[in-house]
Amino acid sequence: MPVYDDPTDARALDAAALQQWTAAIVEEIGTPPDIAADVAEVLVSSDRRGIASHGTARLPLYASLVEGGDMDPVARPTIQRQRPALVLMDAHNGWGHHACRVGVDLAIERARELGSCTVVLRASNHYGIAGWYALRAAQQGLIGVSMTNSSPLVAPTRSRVPMLGTNPIAIAAPAGRFDAFCLDMATSTVPRGRIEVAARRGWSLPVGWAIDVEGNPATTPEAALEGSLHPLGGTEATGGYKGYGLALVVELLTGILGGAAFGPNIVSLFSVHAGPSDLGETFMVIDPSAIDEPGAFEARLEELIEQLIAAPTVPDAPGPVLIPGAPEAAAERLAAQRGVVIDREHHESLLDMGLRMGIPLPPYRVPAARS
Amino acid sequence: MPVYDDPTDARALDAAALQQWTAAIVEEIGTPPDIAADVAEVLVSSDRRGIASHGTARLPLYASLVEGGDMDPVARPTIQRQRPALVLMDAHNGWGHHACRVGVDLAIERARELGSCTVVLRASNHYGIAGWYALRAAQQGLIGVSMTNSSPLVAPTRSRVPMLGTNPIAIAAPAGRFDAFCLDMATSTVPRGRIEVAARRGWSLPVGWAIDVEGNPATTPEAALEGSLHPLGGTEATGGYKGYGLALVVELLTGILGGAAFGPNIVSLFSVHAGPSDLGETFMVIDPSAIDEPGAFEARLEELIEQLIAAPTVPDAPGPVLIPGAPEAAAERLAAQRGVVIDREHHESLLDMGLRMGIPLPPYRVPAARS
Repeated sequence: MPVYDDPTDARALDAAALQQWTAAIVEEIGTPPDIAADVAEVLVSSDRRGIASHGTARLPLYASLVEGGDMDPVARPTIQRQRPALVLMDAHNGWGHHACRVGVDLAIERARELGSCTVVLRASNHYGIAGWYALRAAQQGLIGVSMTNSSPLVAPTRSRVPMLGTNPIAIAAPAGRFDAFCLDMATSTVPRGRIEVAARRGWSLPVGWAIDVEGNPATTPEAALEGSLHPLGGTEATGGYKGYGLALVVELLTGILGGAAFGPNIVSLFSVHAGPSDLGETFMVIDPSAIDEPGAFEARLEELIEQLIAAPTVPDAPGPVLIPGAPEAAAERLAAQRGVVIDREHHESLLDMGLRMGIPLPPYRVPAARS
Repeated sequence: MPVYDDPTDARALDAAALQQWTAAIVEEIGTPPDIAADVAEVLVSSDRRGIASHGTARLPLYASLVEGGDMDPVARPTIQRQRPALVLMDAHNGWGHHACRVGVDLAIERARELGSCTVVLRASNHYGIAGWYALRAAQQGLIGVSMTNSSPLVAPTRSRVPMLGTNPIAIAAPAGRFDAFCLDMATSTVPRGRIEVAARRGWSLPVGWAIDVEGNPATTPEAALEGSLHPLGGTEATGGYKGYGLALVVELLTGILGGAAFGPNIVSLFSVHAGPSDLGETFMVIDPSAIDEPGAFEARLEELIEQLIAAPTVPDAPGPVLIPGAPEAAAERLAAQRGVVIDREHHESLLDMGLRMGIPLPPYRVPAARS
């Protein structure tokens, strides 16, 4: 639920035009149009929701993985083994965004029939924001859970080295007039991107975000970037072993359950020629209407949300209690008005890609200030 | 994964004898023998695993709820609505421990057939330690998830008052020669019991555990006990909104999904004559062998655990990286040798109960020190 400020020197692009351009670039590197459409949809959705780190900013990296032979742009997921309510799919090292769209759609279809279903993918790649897949279920009236393992950045409690990824988990549910509930969180205190931002801005770090290479609390972003992230909860005294446990649970339900790579054995996302990522991703979908009257679940969730946002606040609260997903939904509404706002470095990397591939990036404008 | 020290002035009781006595007490207040056996099994398992707060220490409270008419000792859960992989059960205000044992057993049975299954209970009561139900699946080779909502003690990020329970979640899985993985955690930084211990021992509290009634960080246990617990992650700056989000997810998958009481509307566990608790509990079970060769899941989890416990440690680490559930399993092995170790106050409350009901508590001995 982080609320990001606009970057300085920001540029705004029309979301639909950016999505069309993204799909064209993804096709240009050898991806069939329907797969490219999924990739573009997930990436630009991240930009629209204000999660710049997981959107089109990653496009140059993905392109280099395809061009370097680390990822197969034409691969399509297939069912490897199954029971009615548990399916293992092999993504065959194709685009994670597409394989996972197919995977969550299968989980949704089966959950409608059976009440719930779990789909696990192996031999997959990075899938962007975890929340997109969970929201896909919520938009159809179901509860969606989405998780992935990832390359090691987080030091388990007591460890001095990274052994687990930031292993995000997202849970979304239909919330009636509040649209959707969507918790989308890394199981680390902060993602690595937050520390990179701190480095650019010259901030010091609070205890609980990261440790340095020696295993002591990292108080500067530089020390943290060479060291490891803390799991959610921070140090052992403040419950960091719970965040570590959650990261392990994600590992257990993705890589370990699916027979993909796991833990310290996962290659870095940022290494070209390191070979296939072989990530694991898991989707669990539950259909509340299978055990209740239509709309009853949403009505109860609406009531709880109303109670939460009416709670009296602490003295230094910057606003009322937030509902997970609400800041991102607000960012999405704003992006519909003023376009997707990205920083200059991100914009220039896309411009450069467009020039290199002969598919010019749509024009930008200077964004209107946030209302 | 807290490792509790032995209480001062501790007393040890034979676990089997304590369990038999507990069942006799539960029967004495009107519970059928098979239901009483479930209650005793879950409560003494908690004591054996070193989680004294959730075991027989709660027996006097449960008895007063039954005697006060707030809980029905003879009620048995029934299926209210269902699809093959999603079942809603009504516990009819009976013992939570029994209803949930029946619930998780149903989820296990269906998961064996379908690959996965979710069972949700409504109109239930407190079920003791979340981990017991998850471990019941793990002991049979399946992955088990167990969660419950609970009476409000936790202030959501920015709220000055408690709106959610400590809403625990437990996940267990078979881990080959490491026996079982079992993460069993409140979604608050610490449970209320940890603050009560701090009060008895005159400790001050770190920031991130609790807030006072005004919404400021509580630095004394007294201020915390009048105020609210922080969700896992502590303050907003250190990711407390993630712990708050997780507490909400538990609420959503239990009370909201099951149509039980939820959030601030749940009556306090500690109030006799407040009426039925109407808690919601949810169990998700996945059968890894449905999508893999037998033993393959366990072998991968063993390998990950080996890697984790071999990780180099931080300078102030009291030992190697811990695997969730390992400290509790060690406590269980110790209890098998020297008995269940409880503190004097707990022992005296059980003694008193036994005298009042004419079922004398088995004799105690002074425990051997922990090796």
